[in-house]
Amino acid sequence: MADGKAALKKIEDLGNGIVIEIKTGKNPKFVTLARTRSNIVFDKKNGYLRLGTAKEERNFINVAQSRKFMQTVAIAAKCHKFLEENLHTTIRGLFYQLKFSLGEDVDESIFSEQAESNPLIEDIEVAIDVKREELNLNANRKGVLAGNLKVEDTFGDERQVIDASKMGRSGWAIPSDVDNDIRFVDVKAKYVIVVEKDALWQRLNEDKFWKKENCILITPQGQAARGTRRLIRKLADQGLPVYVFTDSDAWGWYIYWTIKTGSINLAYIGEDVATPEAKFLGVTMADLDKYDFLNKLTIKASDVDLKRAQEMLQYEWIKKHKEWVTELERMIKSKIKLEQDALQGPKLTFVDDYIRDKIKNSDYLP
Amino acid sequence: MADGKAALKKIEDLGNGIVIEIKTGKNPKFVTLARTRSNIVFDKKNGYLRLGTAKEERNFINVAQSRKFMQTVAIAAKCHKFLEENLHTTIRGLFYQLKFSLGEDVDESIFSEQAESNPLIEDIEVAIDVKREELNLNANRKGVLAGNLKVEDTFGDERQVIDASKMGRSGWAIPSDVDNDIRFVDVKAKYVIVVEKDALWQRLNEDKFWKKENCILITPQGQAARGTRRLIRKLADQGLPVYVFTDSDAWGWYIYWTIKTGSINLAYIGEDVATPEAKFLGVTMADLDKYDFLNKLTIKASDVDLKRAQEMLQYEWIKKHKEWVTELERMIKSKIKLEQDALQGPKLTFVDDYIRDKIKNSDYLP
Repeated sequence: MADGKAALKKIEDLGNGIVIEIKTGKNPKFVTLARTRSNIVFDKKNGYLRLGTAKEERNFINVAQSRKFMQTVAIAAKCHKFLEENLHTTIRGLFYQLKFSLGEDVDESIFSEQAESNPLIEDIEVAIDVKREELNLNANRKGVLAGNLKVEDTFGDERQVIDASKMGRSGWAIPSDVDNDIRFVDVKAKYVIVVEKDALWQRLNEDKFWKKENCILITPQGQAARGTRRLIRKLADQGLPVYVFTDSDAWGWYIYWTIKTGSINLAYIGEDVATPEAKFLGVTMADLDKYDFLNKLTIKASDVDLKRAQEMLQYEWIKKHKEWVTELERMIKSKIKLEQDALQGPKLTFVDDYIRDKIKNSDYLP
Repeated sequence: MADGKAALKKIEDLGNGIVIEIKTGKNPKFVTLARTRSNIVFDKKNGYLRLGTAKEERNFINVAQSRKFMQTVAIAAKCHKFLEENLHTTIRGLFYQLKFSLGEDVDESIFSEQAESNPLIEDIEVAIDVKREELNLNANRKGVLAGNLKVEDTFGDERQVIDASKMGRSGWAIPSDVDNDIRFVDVKAKYVIVVEKDALWQRLNEDKFWKKENCILITPQGQAARGTRRLIRKLADQGLPVYVFTDSDAWGWYIYWTIKTGSINLAYIGEDVATPEAKFLGVTMADLDKYDFLNKLTIKASDVDLKRAQEMLQYEWIKKHKEWVTELERMIKSKIKLEQDALQGPKLTFVDDYIRDKIKNSDYLP
């Protein structure tokens, strides 16, 4: 597992640094960037959420910090072991390993809840600039892809090439880690379309939309998991435009913003998971003027939708983008919303025409 | 779509029957089996939940029933259209089609909420003995498979063979419909193991457990979706033993019972989705005696777990199976539970040894 070597080296450097501090009689310390709200900034120039520069230091010889210091070191040691073994687990599996034993000859348990180990994993990710996936920790995965894309997955001792145009009705299940021992072999598609709902993805996949339009069709199956966000970022890095297609409601907008700008929780890896170039394809309130039949198929906006629209109107970024202001104000005024499923009303394949028209006419929101 | 023809014929027979009733001056009626609680029975002989024989009749010339009658006919007509078009949608897509227009020349909307159309779809499934998947209605899908299994997926105009031993870290995403235009090409495996959590599935998949043991490795990713339940049933029909591996808690037991005996909600297709032959592999409270280290890795049982254990002890079936009584009583007494993830405590690959030992020693619960 060649890719893991860089992470292995970084953990070893971290450990060696501590050893040197001990040997030279210094108070061993661990330094990371603060992941507090106050240190999360919206990077206006690049358009995503990231950490600021505030640091957090943890010292071994400090009554309030020594336990956390030890725990952090124990986690780093376990991840080092996973990398050496070339085996993956999850943060839950890591927790049970920590609970079982801290190491070869330490039988003391200093972890009682997973809530203790989780933030420390993030500390390490930030401190040595690795993602947990590089530490052989799988995150939850969700999301499916179809299209003219081949992926080479080096999996144990085998190299398997997965052709996302030959996955039938199922599609390729997007893994947790799309960086290590996995690479794009062949990206022939012209753009990426991210469809909120699996139901619509299946509709479009059945029509072979991705084949007819030569695009890559992704569904995050709701809110996008880390792996799916990272994959979208990587496809954008290949020069492919990314269009996001969701419901016109609070949840749909949230899915879009998370893909585009990242999220508070993942601000510490913002650059790697955000795709600021992404555009919002629809559905929009403005579609009600373009497609008359949709007026028959609106549903009542919920309080959550209306509240969220109000909140978004306060965002500096939104204020600068008139199309969004108009969208949000229209929902607040009319108190209705629109689902992407409604596009199936007149005929099941209408959703294909809709996307095609939108892209042809560059009819999307920033 | 050869498979769809039977369903098409059944819908046409339903429609023709109504036409004849009208022409002969009779009151058109629709007859189905009642899906009320009182008509759901546990079939002791076969070991699953199914409908009884109570019928429900709906007449057109009846003030209380005519609306529902019309709605039912409208749904049947839409499904007939989907089958003729050879296109799939979901029950949400169907709802929007109904909301848009009832048919060629009927512009009246008689559906305002999806809650109106959903039960009527089930009525039709029962009345003419088809599953919604045969009516081109996709259900939610969830679940992943790896192993020595090839599946032929006739997908639009293409026939694609999916080799579940060549899906890398991802596995084959189990579709909503595993009956129509899809078939097993090659089932070489010796047994099926169903692992509750995707995290453990990924662990076992990384170890190529399915290859070493020549089995099929499935995760329903929590509670099993219709497609996954149906697939497990079909693999059992191929003569493969099915072992279910979950947490030892209320949720884990529920996942097992649903796979084994079906569920109240799907009692109307019980025979097609239940696998009464399935065995419960673990984890069990009895494992605490066999694997000493697990005693260090138990967690507190929740009130839900304890309440559920009490309830299960009242079941006639449980009372007859002493191993289960012992299990449940042990949790109630000790107030602790055990997760399958805990098996990773001593080493990440221990879960492989665990399953192997259990199967070798026939150490599972009925």
